[in-house]
Amino acid sequence: MAAARRRPILGVMLVGGGLARRRTAIWLAASLVLCLLGVARAQTDPLPSWNDGPTKRSLVEFVQTVTDRANPRFVRPELRIATFDNDGTLWSEQPIYFQFAFALDRVRALAPKNPEWKTKQPFKAVLEGDMKVLAASGEKGLVELLLATHTGMTTEEFTKTVADWIGTAQHPRFKRPYTDLAYQPMVELLTYLRGNGFKTYIVSGGTVEFMRPWTERTYGIPPEQVIGTSFATVFKMGADGKPMLFRQPKVEFINDGPGKPVAIQKFIGRRPVLAFGNSDGDHQMLQWTAAGEGARFVGLVHHTDAGREWAYDRQSHIGRLDKALDEARTRGWAVVDMKTDWKRIYAFE
Amino acid sequence: MAAARRRPILGVMLVGGGLARRRTAIWLAASLVLCLLGVARAQTDPLPSWNDGPTKRSLVEFVQTVTDRANPRFVRPELRIATFDNDGTLWSEQPIYFQFAFALDRVRALAPKNPEWKTKQPFKAVLEGDMKVLAASGEKGLVELLLATHTGMTTEEFTKTVADWIGTAQHPRFKRPYTDLAYQPMVELLTYLRGNGFKTYIVSGGTVEFMRPWTERTYGIPPEQVIGTSFATVFKMGADGKPMLFRQPKVEFINDGPGKPVAIQKFIGRRPVLAFGNSDGDHQMLQWTAAGEGARFVGLVHHTDAGREWAYDRQSHIGRLDKALDEARTRGWAVVDMKTDWKRIYAFE
Repeated sequence: MAAARRRPILGVMLVGGGLARRRTAIWLAASLVLCLLGVARAQTDPLPSWNDGPTKRSLVEFVQTVTDRANPRFVRPELRIATFDNDGTLWSEQPIYFQFAFALDRVRALAPKNPEWKTKQPFKAVLEGDMKVLAASGEKGLVELLLATHTGMTTEEFTKTVADWIGTAQHPRFKRPYTDLAYQPMVELLTYLRGNGFKTYIVSGGTVEFMRPWTERTYGIPPEQVIGTSFATVFKMGADGKPMLFRQPKVEFINDGPGKPVAIQKFIGRRPVLAFGNSDGDHQMLQWTAAGEGARFVGLVHHTDAGREWAYDRQSHIGRLDKALDEARTRGWAVVDMKTDWKRIYAFE
Repeated sequence: MAAARRRPILGVMLVGGGLARRRTAIWLAASLVLCLLGVARAQTDPLPSWNDGPTKRSLVEFVQTVTDRANPRFVRPELRIATFDNDGTLWSEQPIYFQFAFALDRVRALAPKNPEWKTKQPFKAVLEGDMKVLAASGEKGLVELLLATHTGMTTEEFTKTVADWIGTAQHPRFKRPYTDLAYQPMVELLTYLRGNGFKTYIVSGGTVEFMRPWTERTYGIPPEQVIGTSFATVFKMGADGKPMLFRQPKVEFINDGPGKPVAIQKFIGRRPVLAFGNSDGDHQMLQWTAAGEGARFVGLVHHTDAGREWAYDRQSHIGRLDKALDEARTRGWAVVDMKTDWKRIYAFE
């Protein structure tokens, strides 16, 4: 008897004696498995980096509502479109947009081939590390830097440059790859949504080809679900008879503010049922999402944690959050308070 | 014994006697089930509307190659991007592009609200059914008709108009809804590809919002996988505080010829491994697809069946196939001969 008791339950099922005993054992084992599965499901929190509170509760409640066929607010899987801003919503954006850090690194790397930059602004300021002069060059200077570093090559060459940079560059404060500054709670939210039949998209003011080389690995979002600002591209037949796509020094589309709902229509053709942003540049995307029929979830990430991340909103030059915050409060959109809502900000913490 | 023989085999397994006999019965039943599944698989032809021949064989061989992990030409599922032209490739395009038939119907429907059209070309020609004068108005006239019928409303209003039209309009030759003129062999190919992990896209010269309302039902292709020519769209806040997307009378992007690979990069960000077209407007998409690394499938639908469909190629104004046909023959791209390769053209046959 003692030896028999030490047998694993599933072992009893397979090697046990008479038919009645075998059947009982099978039922016992099956019940136990089902019971354990139930416990496991109840214990698996899909959002472990979120503190319990109204934001987390409203997210889970929304997902349960739209996936419950018996609920009048059920949303068919093909309509479960979720759009997310990137900078400041899925990863950090301080002290400068990470794409801008890439552009500055590229100016330094390309300087030997462009000797005239030593005396030409805004390149001179970059090479001399004079951020004050650089800032004074304004949007015109910024666009000039972007065009000089993001265009004038094939799409494949640019993709390789971004992939190399993202694999080696380090964030100045955390001394880690920039992709380590993805927000762990948002990565969990993306995974949770996809697990519930949502298609997750990035809708960012950043340029699309800068994001695509790393969004799949970092967020689980494939290139075809990344929407961003773009440069004009042309098809050319190379001298070797090989076709190429060449990036032209011309901004084609700025995916910011009212451009975001326009791009959502152009690329997806369906209105999102969930959208997240963090700045006034996301305001129209949130308005467009909120104005749809049926269940909706509209959220803002509010940067309130100067210790673990950064704290900024109405007065900030980067990621200014002012009008959208007012509307969120009037309309009852979710406002994520990073300091209290997020148990952990980065995966490396 | 006679009664026992009449028992179904699986019944024997459940109610049979001694352990040894039970085990034998279980093995027999399991073997039989596996064997039947194998037969069923071999007998289920994924492309029943294709005649056996080199085109069908090369398609099946391609799919088997890229989905076989042991094959050096295996393609990871996320890279299995397949792009298809629409007019003349997935459905017919004669006697006029179906979108143009929609535009003409819309001119007639909108005429009472636009009395000036009675004396203004090219509208006058449409209202009087004078196709000769209409043709003489050329591309300029065509664009004017498109702008007058496809823009100047919200995206939702336009979608409803298209959905209403596609649900009621009839093709003049077949007296059936236009979507009945989808090619059954191509619908089977799309399904077969998706069943093997491919993501199927439309990349058409037609305007995107004209296709999206019916592509999911007709081809199983959702709106976010439809790429086409587009009109400028703007975000506006309505007087009622509801945001809207308004279609402007301005062509934004022409998705034809060299525009197709450009759009593929913009919308998908990955080079297709399979592409199908039927005209010189698809030439660059096919070149771009063919020039990628690894296994590729590039195909042309050649309209050779004047009886069941239409026969046209080098001399045709609609869907002219000339240079792409030459390159297909030089490079060994698949050329579907509708007359011999397709057992059935439409599902209603």
